[in-house]
Amino acid sequence: MPRYALTIEYDGGPFVGWQRQANGMSVQQRLEEAVLAINGERAVIHGAGRTDAGVHALGQVAHVDLRRAWRVDRLRDALNAHLKPDPIAVVDARAVEETFEARFSAIRRHYRYLIDNRRAPLTVTLGRAWHVKRPLDAEAMHEAAQRLVGRYDFTTFRASECQANSPIRTLERLDVCRDGDRIEIVTCARSFLHNQVRSMAGSLEHVGTGKWRAEDLADALAAKDRARCGQVAPPHGLYLVAVDY
Amino acid sequence: MPRYALTIEYDGGPFVGWQRQANGMSVQQRLEEAVLAINGERAVIHGAGRTDAGVHALGQVAHVDLRRAWRVDRLRDALNAHLKPDPIAVVDARAVEETFEARFSAIRRHYRYLIDNRRAPLTVTLGRAWHVKRPLDAEAMHEAAQRLVGRYDFTTFRASECQANSPIRTLERLDVCRDGDRIEIVTCARSFLHNQVRSMAGSLEHVGTGKWRAEDLADALAAKDRARCGQVAPPHGLYLVAVDY
Repeated sequence: MPRYALTIEYDGGPFVGWQRQANGMSVQQRLEEAVLAINGERAVIHGAGRTDAGVHALGQVAHVDLRRAWRVDRLRDALNAHLKPDPIAVVDARAVEETFEARFSAIRRHYRYLIDNRRAPLTVTLGRAWHVKRPLDAEAMHEAAQRLVGRYDFTTFRASECQANSPIRTLERLDVCRDGDRIEIVTCARSFLHNQVRSMAGSLEHVGTGKWRAEDLADALAAKDRARCGQVAPPHGLYLVAVDY
Repeated sequence: MPRYALTIEYDGGPFVGWQRQANGMSVQQRLEEAVLAINGERAVIHGAGRTDAGVHALGQVAHVDLRRAWRVDRLRDALNAHLKPDPIAVVDARAVEETFEARFSAIRRHYRYLIDNRRAPLTVTLGRAWHVKRPLDAEAMHEAAQRLVGRYDFTTFRASECQANSPIRTLERLDVCRDGDRIEIVTCARSFLHNQVRSMAGSLEHVGTGKWRAEDLADALAAKDRARCGQVAPPHGLYLVAVDY
């Protein structure tokens, strides 16, 4: 059966997350419904990253096996027609080798975490960024963040329900920069633990407000203790930006 | 009475526009209600630009006279408390001279028009950009746009209901640039005619698709004929970014 890789964008707000769940509509389920509608057959969509409820994606990648060959632009358009009016879009579709696995073939995942740092409530960016009212020192956040870059045991920044075999990950990049009221945290790694980016973002917020020094962040990492995580930042500031293969 | 200038951000989607109208809720009315709530007195809020229904603002400026002096940070916070849950926020408040007029003291207005140029439907940017499916040549748009920069009679790009005394305006800047699927049109002038930015953006779209050459845009301008406007781009792609004084 021909295999296709899809690049998928979604607003995570209305969904219980990427993965199919009993308690509500997931992005995966909506995509599988769309595949059923165009393909006439149940097929499983395999995603590269299991984003949580409320987390957005600009470049989630998934693969699916279809029983017949499609022209990739027609496949993209047909799926999008059946995804309406939900805020999920297939931005790109391409034919791939049958050895391609969206999750296991990935060599790098890119995430972005957005903070709007100001007193005033959010309007046009509501639900698209974390609203932090207390002034954040983005330079201090960036400097401290470098203590997390490298190969470490990230138990502190890992959800208790994380199913990964090992808490060891190699963080390739964790940059924090400010543009006006907007603070952007950019990170990439081969893979992340469950809640890792939000746990790092929440802890970096403590550095930004001055509650934590860079040393406290390093100590929290070294403790390998979930209870030492500063806080988990809310999902609506997080974006799965791209997956490299 | 002390006069205050407010910098205001809003999602134009739910409103009939900036200006008070009989047919629905306006941004001005909501702000005047908030002023009444904190000030105990009716006061008129005077805006720098009358954005249309659906048009967003990141930096609308307005002035208001209050019967007592406020600490500006308290004024901002008090107004925001009364604006909830509507997507209007007072980002900044400052005391100004009584000669300051948000509309008439302005020396330059900055607008941005956003286009998402791709086949796939919009998700996280839905209602925040114009979705144009046909490929646009942003370089051709930018080059043609330069034919509109300068002092001209903009009758072609002016709504029939425009109340300005003269159709002559000096367009200081009209830049078009692409970043991936996103096309951004950046423009500024001392003042604009009613619907001018959306009329220019809609006509530039014709250049982008190849329906119009740069020459056609220049001819449309020279015709001084509203019927020669290409089209009026939808309001939800437009942002009033800032007002200079």
